[in-house]
Amino acid sequence: MKREDFQQLDRGDPLTALREQFVVPDGLIYLDGNSLGVLPRATAARVAGVLEREWGQGLIGSWNAASWIDLPQRIGNKIARLVGALEDELVVADSTSVNLYKVLSAAVQIVREDAPARGVVVSERSNFPTDLYIAESVCRQHGWRLELLEHDTLADRLGCGDVALLMLTHVNYRSGRMHDMGALTRAAHDAGALTVWDLAHSAGAVPVDLHAAQADFAIGCGYKYLNGGPGAPAFVWAHPRHAGRFRQPLSGWMGHAAPFAFVPDYRPASGIARYLCGTPPVLSLAALECGVDSVLAAAPLGGMAALRSKSIALTERFIELVETRCAGHGLELVTPRAAAARGSQVCLARAEGGYAIVQALIARGVVGDFREGDKAREGVPDILRFGVTPLYTRFVDVWDAVEQLRQVLDGGEWREARFNQRAAVT
Amino acid sequence: MKREDFQQLDRGDPLTALREQFVVPDGLIYLDGNSLGVLPRATAARVAGVLEREWGQGLIGSWNAASWIDLPQRIGNKIARLVGALEDELVVADSTSVNLYKVLSAAVQIVREDAPARGVVVSERSNFPTDLYIAESVCRQHGWRLELLEHDTLADRLGCGDVALLMLTHVNYRSGRMHDMGALTRAAHDAGALTVWDLAHSAGAVPVDLHAAQADFAIGCGYKYLNGGPGAPAFVWAHPRHAGRFRQPLSGWMGHAAPFAFVPDYRPASGIARYLCGTPPVLSLAALECGVDSVLAAAPLGGMAALRSKSIALTERFIELVETRCAGHGLELVTPRAAAARGSQVCLARAEGGYAIVQALIARGVVGDFREGDKAREGVPDILRFGVTPLYTRFVDVWDAVEQLRQVLDGGEWREARFNQRAAVT
Repeated sequence: MKREDFQQLDRGDPLTALREQFVVPDGLIYLDGNSLGVLPRATAARVAGVLEREWGQGLIGSWNAASWIDLPQRIGNKIARLVGALEDELVVADSTSVNLYKVLSAAVQIVREDAPARGVVVSERSNFPTDLYIAESVCRQHGWRLELLEHDTLADRLGCGDVALLMLTHVNYRSGRMHDMGALTRAAHDAGALTVWDLAHSAGAVPVDLHAAQADFAIGCGYKYLNGGPGAPAFVWAHPRHAGRFRQPLSGWMGHAAPFAFVPDYRPASGIARYLCGTPPVLSLAALECGVDSVLAAAPLGGMAALRSKSIALTERFIELVETRCAGHGLELVTPRAAAARGSQVCLARAEGGYAIVQALIARGVVGDFREGDKAREGVPDILRFGVTPLYTRFVDVWDAVEQLRQVLDGGEWREARFNQRAAVT
Repeated sequence: MKREDFQQLDRGDPLTALREQFVVPDGLIYLDGNSLGVLPRATAARVAGVLEREWGQGLIGSWNAASWIDLPQRIGNKIARLVGALEDELVVADSTSVNLYKVLSAAVQIVREDAPARGVVVSERSNFPTDLYIAESVCRQHGWRLELLEHDTLADRLGCGDVALLMLTHVNYRSGRMHDMGALTRAAHDAGALTVWDLAHSAGAVPVDLHAAQADFAIGCGYKYLNGGPGAPAFVWAHPRHAGRFRQPLSGWMGHAAPFAFVPDYRPASGIARYLCGTPPVLSLAALECGVDSVLAAAPLGGMAALRSKSIALTERFIELVETRCAGHGLELVTPRAAAARGSQVCLARAEGGYAIVQALIARGVVGDFREGDKAREGVPDILRFGVTPLYTRFVDVWDAVEQLRQVLDGGEWREARFNQRAAVT
């Protein structure tokens, strides 16, 4: 394989045109779209318009005239198309953590009514920490218990009769492993449990079909593969069989059945709208809509299925290049080798130097990220994480990234002190 | 009194220069800063910089390099200066509704430990509905009861021995009445209850001194007098004697003691930082900071005390003009006549036509708003609401606004059908 082969793949790829939608800094190979997606070109003008025209000139009237009030539902309906939800089933609101609290709290009420003897939430030990923190809190409130397992023991655990909820991030942020949403949901339902899926690393990255999977609840993030900008608002979905059944406890005015009646008593809106809470951050919502539109722009080119095919092609080649050109450097593939079990990222473990290698790559213009392992536990190594985002990652980027990785490892520059000083955030 | 007298007042007012900070649409008299503050001139450039430079070019590295990660605390510390809180006691996060849920949930734990027999939350019947909805939800969760009273019976009710919390919006959104925070907090404490203050209509509008009042918890809004933009993030404060004592249930990663350690177990940060939850919307935070700065810009001119003096002068004259020049039109002053009991707004009741009168005024370029009454209850009339924002409201605006109101009433144009069609939102 040569660099030219990868350039040739880009020339033959109809999705390449989608990259034109984005600002990708010159010379940068950005493989961290699974932490923060890049800036769509449309966003700056849209946000400037919201600021200067809608807010600056339209002021309070823009809640109606510029349809600010509709943004949570309108953007929600767009995201719905990416995750197999139907019209008016999904809204944008708050953060992923807050939305998880809402759906877990609602799920507790359902279980209390339908299966009151159950009180265990099962999740993956390496699930994204904030999800575990929120689940821990909900369990504490209700006298339930959070049980953390390895991915390959989840299905077995469901059958013990006490599991109320299976809560998973569909694509694991550390390993890049993609769970089989349909199979695990079926197993959970067969065992009498509900499912809550975090789509943070799925929405806009891999095809998701919440209805086909018969999932119960889902939440997700706007700032990763949806390109909504730093801290973009999150989304929440509940299957219609659940959405209108119980209140979620964050009963703010936006989720009221008559939000503008200003009555003192809360009456939840029907369906998913009751999962709205306070006044949403309009500037951030506008940016999120541009990001979601950047993913929907793939629809005429085959949509999520086409993006997924390209994502698999990119990660396959990434793995192949690492294993051939970086052999002997102690890198170990953490992400599943089987494409069907892999999200849109490649994770590599290395016994030492992972942080410094990532820093050395960043200095060379290749941005991935580092996730620290847990030295006290078997099987939780330091991780070098490389996200591919088929909307804007090119085949030649994969070649160049691995070539830079090879040079960093061959030359040993990662041992330099400057690459070993930890910053506060990664 | 003549229009020239009001122009003269503006010429003699050193605060007039502060208006230059804002975009105020030509010809518009904007008296709805208590719903949505106007756009600071600095905001567009700041947000564009966050978008194009920090996000577009800096990408994920901007969490460190552009200090995104510090925004909730940095802006919180700025707001703290406006409400009598100290450094590192106040953070920006989520929405007012979500923050209220956090502080009420924490307060429940405190009461359970210190005074377990108590279980009543007392509030004002005309408190802002979303506050009541959230309190209702927290009460439902914990088997407590929300009791809604008229403002003049609150103090008496505290002494009955069962009140756990007094929850009030410092300046009532409907009436413009400003509660005596110090006196009511003292009364609550004397009676063994805690206080939760919503500063939505206070922060940036009237001087607040949370420490002098010995308040227990406070929350507030970024998009009214703080000029943070539509749906700007909110803030939360807990007195240091409470802040680190209990967990709030929305235990997201930002409130973790070591947010970047990615450990599976939640350990709350010390102090107010544990009231942070998920990843904050950075674009909206940046806009909020510009808004807060626009209020802090008054510091060299006397700060909140000077703004308050001007606010009182503006509302005094507004009332006087209405009562002299609009006499005989059935307008009744709802806002307290005593300046010390009045926030930065003037509310007028009228038996009929309130909505249409507000619409007719808007058509004439005078933007106030309308708040519907409750025909089923005594003393809850329809309200015409006019907020004055001494950062940018001029004395001549008060003259002109009342003159337009006089013309609308004298000419009866509000009876026209076009002013009587209700929009979805006001």
